[in-house]
Amino acid sequence: MLHLQSKTNQRWLDQVDQSLAEILIDHAHCEKKAAGTALNLMFAYVEDIELCQEMTEIVNEELEHFHMVLDLLAKRGIKFRRTKPSSYGRKLNDLVRKGEPHRAVDRLLVAGLIEARSCERFSVLAEHVEDQELAEFYRSLFESEARHHTTYTRLAKHFAPEAEVMARLDELAAAEAEIMEEGEELPRMHS
Amino acid sequence: MLHLQSKTNQRWLDQVDQSLAEILIDHAHCEKKAAGTALNLMFAYVEDIELCQEMTEIVNEELEHFHMVLDLLAKRGIKFRRTKPSSYGRKLNDLVRKGEPHRAVDRLLVAGLIEARSCERFSVLAEHVEDQELAEFYRSLFESEARHHTTYTRLAKHFAPEAEVMARLDELAAAEAEIMEEGEELPRMHS
Repeated sequence: MLHLQSKTNQRWLDQVDQSLAEILIDHAHCEKKAAGTALNLMFAYVEDIELCQEMTEIVNEELEHFHMVLDLLAKRGIKFRRTKPSSYGRKLNDLVRKGEPHRAVDRLLVAGLIEARSCERFSVLAEHVEDQELAEFYRSLFESEARHHTTYTRLAKHFAPEAEVMARLDELAAAEAEIMEEGEELPRMHS
Repeated sequence: MLHLQSKTNQRWLDQVDQSLAEILIDHAHCEKKAAGTALNLMFAYVEDIELCQEMTEIVNEELEHFHMVLDLLAKRGIKFRRTKPSSYGRKLNDLVRKGEPHRAVDRLLVAGLIEARSCERFSVLAEHVEDQELAEFYRSLFESEARHHTTYTRLAKHFAPEAEVMARLDELAAAEAEIMEEGEELPRMHS
């Protein structure tokens, strides 16, 4: 359902154990960025009414999540601050093809893959963290991230035939799995 | 309350009478841009929790308005499409000073002045248009735009003392009135 080609490994869980506060701060930034991505897609393809409606819902939901993470940070006495983002998003966005309609397909699929990976990581985190409030929170996000992935993949089919979209999704998912495999030292939601 | 230094004149009402459909399309774009402005401000000043909360509310409200305008367009058989924006926003944004905290003050005040002008124009439109559904719609937007203006002006005071903010607001409002006075040929919400 999530079209991912790899599973989160122990290396990342070790990062979580060593730097949960930093992962939480990055999580807030990710929710904010997800809202920005949805709004930018709406700006870029504003003639597609269904896309505009779906993007609006995603913007609202991501901003709601953003504030939920800010509340969790405040409760734990962790100060929200700017941090260096992981290179995951940039690496994925570098794969977006130039020229429409390819660009639209890729932007939507990349946004969808990021949602899929977040979803997979929330599921892993919900089982892994000992803080039960946090585990419950991660569990509560799982469903919406999975739904966003499905929405983005469906909308990509507005711009190319289904078979072409699904073949491209396979390619991008393979690239995403490689980026995850490389990992990075900074502890982040997608490191 | 709106800190504007001029009133909408007959020249603009003539544009409205000649090109109401274009004004409506531009209105939808303006709501979308207002959501984008609020989200960008949140991204830029993310450590200011109150600002983040207020920007989130504004994003949600502007997107709701955006969809309300899209519905009005659909009902009237007007196709939503890309259009050349008026130069109003660009001219105002050109006045934003470089370097923080001046930049924050100016970005917030400019966003607030655009809301104020929209508010004033909605009020004028509500009295002017014959279409009663449309008049009612403009009336319903008046309150939120006025509130957004107040919010932006209040948040600017997070970045500079009140007296300095209010003096700068006077300067920017004078510039805004001049831009309005110049006007432009394209029929737009802020032409």
